[in-house]
Amino acid sequence: MKRALELAAEAADQGEVPVGAVIVHGPTDRVLAEAHNRVLLDKDPSAHAELLAIRQACKVLDSERLIDCDLYVTLEPCPMCAQAISFARIRRLYYGASDPKGGGVEHGPRIFSSSSCHHKPEIYGGPGGEQAGELLREFFRGRR
Amino acid sequence: MKRALELAAEAADQGEVPVGAVIVHGPTDRVLAEAHNRVLLDKDPSAHAELLAIRQACKVLDSERLIDCDLYVTLEPCPMCAQAISFARIRRLYYGASDPKGGGVEHGPRIFSSSSCHHKPEIYGGPGGEQAGELLREFFRGRR
Repeated sequence: MKRALELAAEAADQGEVPVGAVIVHGPTDRVLAEAHNRVLLDKDPSAHAELLAIRQACKVLDSERLIDCDLYVTLEPCPMCAQAISFARIRRLYYGASDPKGGGVEHGPRIFSSSSCHHKPEIYGGPGGEQAGELLREFFRGRR
Repeated sequence: MKRALELAAEAADQGEVPVGAVIVHGPTDRVLAEAHNRVLLDKDPSAHAELLAIRQACKVLDSERLIDCDLYVTLEPCPMCAQAISFARIRRLYYGASDPKGGGVEHGPRIFSSSSCHHKPEIYGGPGGEQAGELLREFFRGRR
């Protein structure tokens, strides 16, 4: 999560909403992917940190499923990313700050609680949340 | 929608779940993007027709928002794609077959009805639905 927070800070430096994500292969502790938000940089509304990291890790493993892989992300994933996390069969999801406005895990459409969700990762909210929240607050203060 | 159905048939020929999508710039009728599912071909769990078409259209317009653009897709979008459609500010969503098992528009998490959904397209379900459904049924029959 420390690395994910560094990636989030890099995002802010580039004018992106500060969210960072890291995917680790659990059994070997190997880092498969690192990413931060790139919506504006890439002009791609789907370029959230989680989605970019998932695509990167799938390339590394040459598979559309990330079996035994864990995702660390600084902010509660949105519904798009939560559904992608389910499709990718991520084993554990660790996220920092809660996102009452845009989150899709414990807020809004609560993707993993839907009857049509076929894979739910183990979920750990909270680690790094304070720093992640501070990064976000600072970022949005600077833009007002 | 006719073109989206052709793309769905192409997907099936390549062993992919037959879903096709086309994005059109409404005011000019210009086709900006065409795609079909490529999850297995690309080994990317996020490579749904809609998401690929959105990314393609954003490249064409050099923008992360698809203002005045309409998306035609043969199947009800999943929650991931529905949220991406919202982020991209798609104007109108036309979809063919309903998807009670995996859909995220009129089923499951009903993304556009969530209070955290900031943009909801005009939605038109049904056109081409019969052919789209037949393509899907045929595909899954062949795999059992």
